[in-house]
Amino acid sequence: MEDYHKPDQQTLQALKDTANRLRISSIRATTAAGSGHPTSCCSAAEIMSVLFFHTMRYKVQDPRNASNDRFVLSKRQAFTDVATGSLGQGLGAACGMAYTGKFFDRASYRVYCLLGDGELSEGSVWEAMAFAGFYKLDNLVAIFDVNRLGQSDPAPLQHHVEIYQKRCEAFGWHAIIVDGHSVEELCKAFGQAKHQPTAIIAKTFKGKGISGVEDKESWHGKPLPKNMAEQVIQEIDDKIQNKKKLSPALPEEDAPVINIRNIKMPSPPTYKVGEKWATRKAYGVALAKLGHANDRVIALDGDTKNSTFSELFKKEHPNRYIECYIAEQNMVSIAVGCATRDRTVAFASTFATFFTRAFDQIRMAAISESNINLCGSHCGVSIGEDGPSQMGLEDLCMFRAVPNATVFYPSDAVATEKAVEIAANTKGICFIRTSRPENPVIYSNNEDFHIGQAKVVVKSKDDQVTVIGAGVTLHEALAAAEQLRKEKIFIRVIDPFTIKPLDKKTILENARVTKGRIITVEDHYHEGGIGEAVCAAVVGEPGITVHRLAVSHVPRSGKSAELLKMFGIDKDAIVQAVKGAVSKSRNAE
Amino acid sequence: MEDYHKPDQQTLQALKDTANRLRISSIRATTAAGSGHPTSCCSAAEIMSVLFFHTMRYKVQDPRNASNDRFVLSKRQAFTDVATGSLGQGLGAACGMAYTGKFFDRASYRVYCLLGDGELSEGSVWEAMAFAGFYKLDNLVAIFDVNRLGQSDPAPLQHHVEIYQKRCEAFGWHAIIVDGHSVEELCKAFGQAKHQPTAIIAKTFKGKGISGVEDKESWHGKPLPKNMAEQVIQEIDDKIQNKKKLSPALPEEDAPVINIRNIKMPSPPTYKVGEKWATRKAYGVALAKLGHANDRVIALDGDTKNSTFSELFKKEHPNRYIECYIAEQNMVSIAVGCATRDRTVAFASTFATFFTRAFDQIRMAAISESNINLCGSHCGVSIGEDGPSQMGLEDLCMFRAVPNATVFYPSDAVATEKAVEIAANTKGICFIRTSRPENPVIYSNNEDFHIGQAKVVVKSKDDQVTVIGAGVTLHEALAAAEQLRKEKIFIRVIDPFTIKPLDKKTILENARVTKGRIITVEDHYHEGGIGEAVCAAVVGEPGITVHRLAVSHVPRSGKSAELLKMFGIDKDAIVQAVKGAVSKSRNAE
Repeated sequence: MEDYHKPDQQTLQALKDTANRLRISSIRATTAAGSGHPTSCCSAAEIMSVLFFHTMRYKVQDPRNASNDRFVLSKRQAFTDVATGSLGQGLGAACGMAYTGKFFDRASYRVYCLLGDGELSEGSVWEAMAFAGFYKLDNLVAIFDVNRLGQSDPAPLQHHVEIYQKRCEAFGWHAIIVDGHSVEELCKAFGQAKHQPTAIIAKTFKGKGISGVEDKESWHGKPLPKNMAEQVIQEIDDKIQNKKKLSPALPEEDAPVINIRNIKMPSPPTYKVGEKWATRKAYGVALAKLGHANDRVIALDGDTKNSTFSELFKKEHPNRYIECYIAEQNMVSIAVGCATRDRTVAFASTFATFFTRAFDQIRMAAISESNINLCGSHCGVSIGEDGPSQMGLEDLCMFRAVPNATVFYPSDAVATEKAVEIAANTKGICFIRTSRPENPVIYSNNEDFHIGQAKVVVKSKDDQVTVIGAGVTLHEALAAAEQLRKEKIFIRVIDPFTIKPLDKKTILENARVTKGRIITVEDHYHEGGIGEAVCAAVVGEPGITVHRLAVSHVPRSGKSAELLKMFGIDKDAIVQAVKGAVSKSRNAE
Repeated sequence: MEDYHKPDQQTLQALKDTANRLRISSIRATTAAGSGHPTSCCSAAEIMSVLFFHTMRYKVQDPRNASNDRFVLSKRQAFTDVATGSLGQGLGAACGMAYTGKFFDRASYRVYCLLGDGELSEGSVWEAMAFAGFYKLDNLVAIFDVNRLGQSDPAPLQHHVEIYQKRCEAFGWHAIIVDGHSVEELCKAFGQAKHQPTAIIAKTFKGKGISGVEDKESWHGKPLPKNMAEQVIQEIDDKIQNKKKLSPALPEEDAPVINIRNIKMPSPPTYKVGEKWATRKAYGVALAKLGHANDRVIALDGDTKNSTFSELFKKEHPNRYIECYIAEQNMVSIAVGCATRDRTVAFASTFATFFTRAFDQIRMAAISESNINLCGSHCGVSIGEDGPSQMGLEDLCMFRAVPNATVFYPSDAVATEKAVEIAANTKGICFIRTSRPENPVIYSNNEDFHIGQAKVVVKSKDDQVTVIGAGVTLHEALAAAEQLRKEKIFIRVIDPFTIKPLDKKTILENARVTKGRIITVEDHYHEGGIGEAVCAAVVGEPGITVHRLAVSHVPRSGKSAELLKMFGIDKDAIVQAVKGAVSKSRNAE
């Protein structure tokens, strides 16, 4: 309580006035737009008033100032730092901001997150609660707006605020129950400093202040009819006294000035052509290296760091590694939070397929125009014995459908190191797909890589087919080229490097000189992968044909080589497909 | 305690023997395979022994008997009813089985779910915990195998079993702490009957019984080397006394005999051509109707039933509706659990885009060969004002990448009713994409629909372009055809009905008679949607061209018609594309 100063009566009245003005504008705006959530706004009016005009410290004229307190509105609405609207994601982002403030910025700004009671059913909220409790984020305050009513029904716990309190305490939080419409109780609760994250459990009423609507069901997400709105606004307006104008306190400007632009590797890669490296390991090597180039590069993982090799970063930069444990949704939200206001360059890793767990968070990160880098290891059937639950076979499809995402699929250690460096300097969502098997290095250390520029790896004037592979299948394609050469059949082999954007120009140019024949081969399901991306790029081009080799059904456990063969994406399958393509058109002649 | 009978000493010793035999076989199997999780198996050896040879009631010869107790192994391994391996999903499925046993079968079988402590970081576990607590699933027992060690690090709570107990209690469970290696404590704990779900928090040691490995880090998921294995097996074998043979108790066979095959609508649809209906509403009407055909049809929703219209089912069949609240991951897992052993035909609905939250659960459901039906409403920009977070723009992409999934995209109320009926009788994952806007009914009530059979909706001998649309964009295509007809330009319009499988034959046949010209138009991102599916189907076919109209970047809020125009997927955009295609090739001539 030490740092709590009770506001004078005038201030309290002014905070009430502000709350009522918020009610009025939310009713006006939503009635005018014919859409929106006035009832949800009204339940949180006092909370917002006290937060923004009493508790939070920020520069009104400089809302993105690094030293400002942060506010995340997790309830259905959008706020500047992160877009919300898909429920249960705000607290994870807030945890990332608080972690950054406490451990990276070591600054005094605090993070406030307003949640609705409906979204507390989302498991992602409890992943974030556990995270904040575990890391003792004492600069984080969560406000539960317990207005009892969900969209279609009352929320499961209704107004049993004591149960919310028990849950918060069990997850390591200090939890205070308040009347969410009492500005005085709110001021007092926000004034309590603790050495753990604080949850303010505010008992509120949906539609508070709107007579006939307050605490009533079936008003969720509905604006008031015009005439009704005008009358309600009048009622609320009558309560406003306008005796004092409020302005927020200023922040301590103690967030360090940093620069995360143009991050360059301290030295070129040091691999030898022919050396065998798994790209997942090259990722760890590259990330650890990049960490020396800029001390704002951070790594996150979900208890798989010894498989993704993010542990190599942790070994060299222990203070910049965040263990998120087995909670992939929260890991992505933490990364989003850490990356807000350009405070860090975040790289989060897990098995490629486990990012499906966080597709909604990734989707929302794109909507938020967040800059995060995600690395998915263990792609495809080539991981071998661990079985289908561990195999990334839909990750290319998922990330291609993320707006403005860049999808890297490096085929050797050198390309992986370049991908990591490029991703660190690329806006939007960057995904790097890495593989478990060890394959030879094929590029020299000074090879230049660019987004959307494919590499022609094997080429001769007699090439009859263009084969496009990436990761392990590029190496299968190289082996196939080798074998076919002995039979005097020559193929061109292309490594796309990025699957999105795809280098349509290079693919077409080379396909045209190989009689229009393209064969794609990928360790991924057919849908939404390399093959479909290529089809969409070349369809309608005269004389171009595409034959796709990909995984066609749920795999099982087995040895890597066996599975590549079983699913027809290995050297032999490519050889067969090439011969088929050549003979087919020969017969046609 | 009333129903707890303490086992005699011989039985206890036999249970210990069984545990040690499990250790030996897990070590043997994993060392032989060169892959697997012997240390995790050893931590749970006594738990498995007591469960399978003392507590559970089942017919060894008939493991899938409807009256058997159920067991779900949520830790990294596969079990018959549901595949696991992606952590944190088992308890949700177990909740679905328990809910089915208690409320639908009204039978005495119980459900046991074994979880690892590492996966307790997954929010989906706490969604399931809240669900079981809320519905007081007293036939459900969760066993937390707290062996302290995760894959790369100790689990966050290590051996603080009292914190797990607090969390379970806060979520409405009866929680008992036991020594997980004491068969006697386990027998006693399992013997306690409660009127709420029970959590057995078992303190165990990873690698228990393997000298040099027990409770040591860095042994996760690693088999023992051969020589080491042999020695360890000898040590364990020496402890086995072999005095008594155990066999499990038999179940009460009180699960009702049911039949969910060949479910037919009680009557044909009753729509009038030209009437305006939103397909999302037609879904609710159809599902409510189907509920009268078979009392094993159930519906689930995540607090959006008044938007998806699953509320129409709830109104007519309140006892067969499961409110899952805002927890989409858990909703899908509940559906999977309800559908196991063919006990129900489950339809789960929410906004299409919120299924991205459950992509990992959907992926695993496919691997489990689960038969569930998912309906996603509010697809695309056509939902209007609610903004991008609510718009399903990647759902077709996601579901197409699910193995053996059937993706329905009905374009009117009649097609929607048929899709619901077909989905109820189709194995695997069925997804039905519904729209928010109201559009006219175009099919007669006796129109026949089949998976993989497209409809040619507009056709004349003078057609110059084939336009493929679905949902709202089919109606935009029909409007475009109408307008173009006035200018003496004729187009063919195709409604695919199912996007996966796609009716390649019909598309190609029609494209060929319209000079090879195809235009696809979809309320979805370009990646992995209708356009790419069509490109992949027709690429390489001589003379076929595909022009794709789709949403190209993150939308914003606006009126439905404005957004369709802004993103170039409305009538005018189609008219323009058709004219472009026609004139282009005219110039070429």
